[in-house]
Amino acid sequence: MTVPAPGPTSAPPFELAVVAGVGLIGGSVALGLRQRLLARRVIGYDASVEVLREAEALGVVDEVRAAPGEWLREADLVVLAAPMRALAPLARELAPFLSSGALVTDVGSVKAGIAAELEALGVRNFVPGHPMAGSERGGVTHARAALLENAVWVLTPTDHTPLTALSRMRALVEALGAAPVVMPPDAHDQLVATVSHLPYLASLALTHLVARDERLSLLAAGGFRDLTRVASGDPRMSRDMVVENRAALREALARFRRHLERLEADLDQPDELLAAAQEGKRTRDSLPVVRRSLLPPRHDLVVAVPDKPNQIGAVTQALGEAGVNIKDIEVLAIREEGGAIRLGLESPEDVRRAGEILSGAGFEVRGRG
Amino acid sequence: MTVPAPGPTSAPPFELAVVAGVGLIGGSVALGLRQRLLARRVIGYDASVEVLREAEALGVVDEVRAAPGEWLREADLVVLAAPMRALAPLARELAPFLSSGALVTDVGSVKAGIAAELEALGVRNFVPGHPMAGSERGGVTHARAALLENAVWVLTPTDHTPLTALSRMRALVEALGAAPVVMPPDAHDQLVATVSHLPYLASLALTHLVARDERLSLLAAGGFRDLTRVASGDPRMSRDMVVENRAALREALARFRRHLERLEADLDQPDELLAAAQEGKRTRDSLPVVRRSLLPPRHDLVVAVPDKPNQIGAVTQALGEAGVNIKDIEVLAIREEGGAIRLGLESPEDVRRAGEILSGAGFEVRGRG
Repeated sequence: MTVPAPGPTSAPPFELAVVAGVGLIGGSVALGLRQRLLARRVIGYDASVEVLREAEALGVVDEVRAAPGEWLREADLVVLAAPMRALAPLARELAPFLSSGALVTDVGSVKAGIAAELEALGVRNFVPGHPMAGSERGGVTHARAALLENAVWVLTPTDHTPLTALSRMRALVEALGAAPVVMPPDAHDQLVATVSHLPYLASLALTHLVARDERLSLLAAGGFRDLTRVASGDPRMSRDMVVENRAALREALARFRRHLERLEADLDQPDELLAAAQEGKRTRDSLPVVRRSLLPPRHDLVVAVPDKPNQIGAVTQALGEAGVNIKDIEVLAIREEGGAIRLGLESPEDVRRAGEILSGAGFEVRGRG
Repeated sequence: MTVPAPGPTSAPPFELAVVAGVGLIGGSVALGLRQRLLARRVIGYDASVEVLREAEALGVVDEVRAAPGEWLREADLVVLAAPMRALAPLARELAPFLSSGALVTDVGSVKAGIAAELEALGVRNFVPGHPMAGSERGGVTHARAALLENAVWVLTPTDHTPLTALSRMRALVEALGAAPVVMPPDAHDQLVATVSHLPYLASLALTHLVARDERLSLLAAGGFRDLTRVASGDPRMSRDMVVENRAALREALARFRRHLERLEADLDQPDELLAAAQEGKRTRDSLPVVRRSLLPPRHDLVVAVPDKPNQIGAVTQALGEAGVNIKDIEVLAIREEGGAIRLGLESPEDVRRAGEILSGAGFEVRGRG
């Protein structure tokens, strides 16, 4: 995890960040902003009152709002993180209230289209983006700042995106611990058609093959489970994604079919097939390993500590007296008004107890992991 | 894990088991036989002297042989576990020395063909089989008895397979902790074409798609890694498998293509596609969970304890004095001449230390996990 060097304290880059759509990604971005003290305040905005309640309880955001209004005028960062089909309506809802200097971004998985939409709404500093992160379990309860660490976060500026906005967005992505990669929207869409949407359709087709014969389920071992795991994703979101990107997806399907036909022909050419198998293994083995998946599970709690003497001592003492063992402690950020520290604990139960103890002692919990 | 009930001690079902081909599967079968005391002696037979040396050192087998001979006459169980392309030559090598009463089985992943081969060689009690188990890492060093636990083990008798042989094979599979499933060879081959060989080709085609564009590797996230994991399998073995089963595989490919075409057409019918996505999720979610993959990693050591008083006490004392913590202890089997116990330890290092300590104290280590 990149840790900002402690030293001369500095102001957070943003005064007010608004995360619109507090799901898995939006929630994780909010947690990252709060834990790394990148915004003085983080407001969560969502269509669902329950989600807002949960987000506040979990310390994912500082405050919540359920309706757009003048309060949006103060926002200098707006993250549109609603499900893809709700993005354009959401943008239309918020746009009238945004200040022209606000940095605005989205996290949708298909990029063509959204930029034109935001431009038409008069949003000046919009940088379309797509953090390549996620887990099978959605929702704000599974949001974690660590989800974004070491993730590739694609930014897809158009010819109209101001370079200053791109630059600010790039810095934000890096500050959140992710790796920015910049490319045009169409290039992104073609790439995700190949590495994400085509595999989803192939996976789906495989599940359909086994649906009508129970013996197949019985014999399906680890390899088949691997190949069909993505078919367990949320059907509506998956459907929206592939329909939105269908043009690029059709091209990817055509290329996939050609490769598959060649392999089928090679069933009569064992030497050719061996070469193909060797090449495939080489390629697969060289896929970059995402470091975070190799880390042991962490049981973390992040607390904000005000800029007063001996706050860290007070935290550790409170936990020590309650018999909660602190395995690891790390300063995440230091600002003028205080800092944030990560406590590595031993178990999810300890994380819960520590949260209760420290909240009771007046400390502000900023997320659990 | 099924544990034979302790009680009136009984004789092992087999006097002498020969495992020909001591790789991942052969080695795991040998470990299962030894840990559950299913054979009085287990001999490993392999083309490679290094493999035999390793197998003996790991306690996977009792003895090793490098050439066929009269010693095979005593075998009442023979497991042919060489790579599929070497199976027929291996069978031809051993057949002249086998007694007619010996129960013989193989573990190859394509069943049509091998039965006719063995029959032509005059092997009477041959039951073709295929344990659906394995891991990405091959070789005897990764062999574990637990690999077979809860695995589906398909048995594919032909019309000529004696029912008594099938019955004995079924009992053996259950005694090893696996689940026998019986079906004709052709049915098996069609099923594995769908759940194993087709997915392998699809996976290979996907890797070929990304080989020529580094940006694709960069954007390939968890889903893509899942879908291409099987492409990392041993190229030669994978190639042999799909070539051997090409007839059934072509049928499976044709069905796969039809499903994929339907999904592509549905890109213009979002409601149809949603239904397809929901059906796919339902099917995938209902795939039986293989229990062992959910268990926390175990660090096990199995030792044979002779039938003398206080042996278990001696084992625990030796480890206790050396500071090796025993988390778990389980009796795996009890026979007239002694038993086998599994010790659950805390780490791979503890397993190694415990192995050294107990070997030094005269105990016989029968495998690590």
